[in-house]
Amino acid sequence: MGKLERQMRFLLELDKQKEIGRQTYLADGSRKEGDAEHAWHMAVMAFLLADYANEPIDVLKAVKMALMHDVVEIDAGDTYAYDTKGNQTKRDREQKAADRIYGMLPEEQASEYRALWEEFEAMETPEARFVNTLDKVQPVLLNDASGGKSWQEHGVRKSQVMERNAKTHEGSAILWDYIRNIIEENTKKGNIAE
Amino acid sequence: MGKLERQMRFLLELDKQKEIGRQTYLADGSRKEGDAEHAWHMAVMAFLLADYANEPIDVLKAVKMALMHDVVEIDAGDTYAYDTKGNQTKRDREQKAADRIYGMLPEEQASEYRALWEEFEAMETPEARFVNTLDKVQPVLLNDASGGKSWQEHGVRKSQVMERNAKTHEGSAILWDYIRNIIEENTKKGNIAE
Repeated sequence: MGKLERQMRFLLELDKQKEIGRQTYLADGSRKEGDAEHAWHMAVMAFLLADYANEPIDVLKAVKMALMHDVVEIDAGDTYAYDTKGNQTKRDREQKAADRIYGMLPEEQASEYRALWEEFEAMETPEARFVNTLDKVQPVLLNDASGGKSWQEHGVRKSQVMERNAKTHEGSAILWDYIRNIIEENTKKGNIAE
Repeated sequence: MGKLERQMRFLLELDKQKEIGRQTYLADGSRKEGDAEHAWHMAVMAFLLADYANEPIDVLKAVKMALMHDVVEIDAGDTYAYDTKGNQTKRDREQKAADRIYGMLPEEQASEYRALWEEFEAMETPEARFVNTLDKVQPVLLNDASGGKSWQEHGVRKSQVMERNAKTHEGSAILWDYIRNIIEENTKKGNIAE
């Protein structure tokens, strides 16, 4: 199979990400969002909010990382943040998914984008730290806008939110400050349980 | 209002793009896709297929352009490619939308991203030509994968598809060749009317 044909098949495979549901409601609370919508929103944030990263970042790298960070969920599914059991097997399921899905690309791009996802997961570079922060900031913004709908639905406690956000400050102290206030307000309102 | 607050409000406004429906079905034909999903898919194409652009492109610029190219549809709605009446008023409706929506951003970013959208519309730079090509390529890929569902639903004729794609070769001769074959095959199959 030629290079272009492999890329096109990979792009059609990615289409499945549109059908992977997340637990976060849209801002107006009308329905839950999908993986592709979440990745799009994060990618826009990656360049509009790039100045708030703690360290200088390569914006193109961060945007690519945001766009592709959930590709493995095509096989492994979305593991809800507060699903303890699911999170125990997440790593294995996602590695197998990465083998299959990135393996569809021409060799050079397969290595490049597999590595970019591993970098995101490892959180050891400025871009990975910043994009991981956006991955936490985006659902908090939406949850707040929808009146805490997803937090309430799952009876989420403040301690869980704080634990999940233990590293959010590492990517951007400013954005962490911003959502920490939102988390506090929603705890006061009872949208997040004490 | 502070800079960050304006950016966050803009980002929440963009959330509405997730609810703007397009006429293209997902590859598996299960439902039609939304604007945010389409923009995400195009943005991934912008970097995975960048080598096929006719001219050298600034990939970050192309990716930003793809991610933001339909923002005005929040107010102006999606105008279906083959809706003659809608396309007569499209430009005016979209200019008003751009005034309001980009106006939510801090001044510097408002100018930058409004200009990027105008650039996309004008098709006079290598990035604008390439991203416009992707905007045509992406729905053809999906239409083909779903067995021509959207073409059939609207009784689209080959002459309409060819007219709509009159400039697709300007962004990438290779990608235009690729989808021209798909268009021919779907005409033979009867998914596109002669």
